[in-house]
Amino acid sequence: MSDTTAASDDVEDRVLEPGDTIGIIGGGQLGRMLAMAAARLGLRTLILDPDADCPAAATAHGVVIARHDDRAALEALSRQAAVITYEFENVPVAPLDAADLSCAVRPGTQALAIAQDRASEKGFFNALGIATAPWAAVDSIADAQTAFAALGPGILKTRRLGYDGKGQARVRGAGDIAAAFSAMDGQPAIYEGFVGFEREVSVIAARFADGSFSAFDVPENRHDAGILRQSIVPADIGPASAAAACSAARTLLDALGYVGVAGVEFFVMADGSVVANEFAPRVHNSGHWTEAACPVSQFEQHIRAVAGWTAGDTARHSDAVMHNLVGDDVNDVPRWLATPGAMLHLYGKAEARPGRKMGHVTVIAPHPR
Amino acid sequence: MSDTTAASDDVEDRVLEPGDTIGIIGGGQLGRMLAMAAARLGLRTLILDPDADCPAAATAHGVVIARHDDRAALEALSRQAAVITYEFENVPVAPLDAADLSCAVRPGTQALAIAQDRASEKGFFNALGIATAPWAAVDSIADAQTAFAALGPGILKTRRLGYDGKGQARVRGAGDIAAAFSAMDGQPAIYEGFVGFEREVSVIAARFADGSFSAFDVPENRHDAGILRQSIVPADIGPASAAAACSAARTLLDALGYVGVAGVEFFVMADGSVVANEFAPRVHNSGHWTEAACPVSQFEQHIRAVAGWTAGDTARHSDAVMHNLVGDDVNDVPRWLATPGAMLHLYGKAEARPGRKMGHVTVIAPHPR
Repeated sequence: MSDTTAASDDVEDRVLEPGDTIGIIGGGQLGRMLAMAAARLGLRTLILDPDADCPAAATAHGVVIARHDDRAALEALSRQAAVITYEFENVPVAPLDAADLSCAVRPGTQALAIAQDRASEKGFFNALGIATAPWAAVDSIADAQTAFAALGPGILKTRRLGYDGKGQARVRGAGDIAAAFSAMDGQPAIYEGFVGFEREVSVIAARFADGSFSAFDVPENRHDAGILRQSIVPADIGPASAAAACSAARTLLDALGYVGVAGVEFFVMADGSVVANEFAPRVHNSGHWTEAACPVSQFEQHIRAVAGWTAGDTARHSDAVMHNLVGDDVNDVPRWLATPGAMLHLYGKAEARPGRKMGHVTVIAPHPR
Repeated sequence: MSDTTAASDDVEDRVLEPGDTIGIIGGGQLGRMLAMAAARLGLRTLILDPDADCPAAATAHGVVIARHDDRAALEALSRQAAVITYEFENVPVAPLDAADLSCAVRPGTQALAIAQDRASEKGFFNALGIATAPWAAVDSIADAQTAFAALGPGILKTRRLGYDGKGQARVRGAGDIAAAFSAMDGQPAIYEGFVGFEREVSVIAARFADGSFSAFDVPENRHDAGILRQSIVPADIGPASAAAACSAARTLLDALGYVGVAGVEFFVMADGSVVANEFAPRVHNSGHWTEAACPVSQFEQHIRAVAGWTAGDTARHSDAVMHNLVGDDVNDVPRWLATPGAMLHLYGKAEARPGRKMGHVTVIAPHPR
């Protein structure tokens, strides 16, 4: 289960040198910020994305303009790169596995495959002894009724391609089941029983090629309509909860033979126990505050890991609140520019559509002298 | 004296919007870091440099490949940009002044012209009531002898194109005068009497389009063979010395009608008084620590200023020591990558020639909780 860092068995993992190139599948804001972090370490980046003017294009060394599932383009990318990584969790796995790549893919495709299917993800957590909400696979309305009868009120979610609250429907009573199932549009789904959690937190975890592990301080995350709005660090949780979440994240990454940064989301219960929600095999929106409050950001940490380098210092010098700028929130930029302790980060997107992540701002409160 | 922010009188100063483009003359590491800071604010950058593979090319949106004195290229740059700035102090002034530009140049060319000539620079300081070392213009060996007789031991420097200790010769006694004058290679020079300073500091100062002023905490700078090796913040100086240096920097920037960040170097005397050494009309090596120890770096501050925006927060959350990585120092990268509190920054230069600035690392010591 640990041989997942190379897409082809005959590709040797390399330790990169300054001047080497990292291929990044995906050109969104996460790719943009990864490219900046790589540049600061003297590494080049080459983005694979269908959009020549994607957010990452402006900060990367170059762009291979192709679909993310274009096998020939993936192979071309691998010939120009010393390692390939990715910046979104819905990278098509089959073309990447089938491609004859000249370099390793870090993190591997197993993490992608598991994270892309909520049933696989939940099953993987459970097999590792990591608690989740009670759940059941739902392929028919009969499955949905059975799940509701067993688990009570909950939420029906498509197994694949859900993010930012899309592909989800709440079931408060038996009368909601038909509409919720219909909202799945024929897609395989899972039903999750509600858990009465007190707050949501995440672990921004990194695992390195030598098996070592590092995590940033745990942020608390506030969502609205399924979209992250704020991450607050430190989270208002006890040290035992933070330790349990980090331990679960480490168990997950070890089991995957993971190399890179992952975001693992947890619910924290009234008794302080933690329940895993989901993980993203990439840098994570709830880790954006690290660029403002730590010597090494999650982006640099990911680049270090996929480069075969060692962990950077995650010690936090300040408390921090990260605010996502979603859609029209971008109109608040002048106010944020004048806010003490604020570090603004915009993604270079021209059009502020509703629900679109346009940027974020982290406000730090340094520890007093 | 204040109408220096626009190269052409008929060009209106603009307040930039995210998505606008900043033209940067020069593609070295300072341009590279300015481009990164601009990208984080959602602004595009276009570099003008003769080298398509210059350090800034990897982080900017594009490169206009041309000499820095190519008037047609400057004009083309101005048509694609909302404002033009520069990243080195030896930008040729005449072509920039002669060019028919479609946008403003910030800071203006007056700051360049003055900073490029040590006699103009010293004279400008003195005219503003800012103390300097005693000095005299030297155009002949007789001038050099007269200056030595009046000022005692000192240093002969070419008036133009000196940096990192180049174009300088020490005069310890009358016997050194002939060799020192010969080292000027026929260039106009100035003679500076030695001042018995205790330490060297700098002010990383910013002035904005509305005339407001902002400065970071004052770093102490350690040089070796004329090249900056370390900047340490806070400097081991009293608050009166820091205030005097900041006040002098503000006087200078006000007199120039300056818009942008400048580095102003001072000697601090045993009695705490300060003596101006020189200024650079650009972001400054002694301000690199700001990216690791402040919410807003000197690079972002410069971008904010030339964009017509307001000052960012310069409050320092940590003490910091910035180490330049010069030539073979780059071999220490693995050690720095493992140093607690270290933020590494490499410039993407392939060849580590002696004296070449390859990168820097800032080690922060956060204020205790």
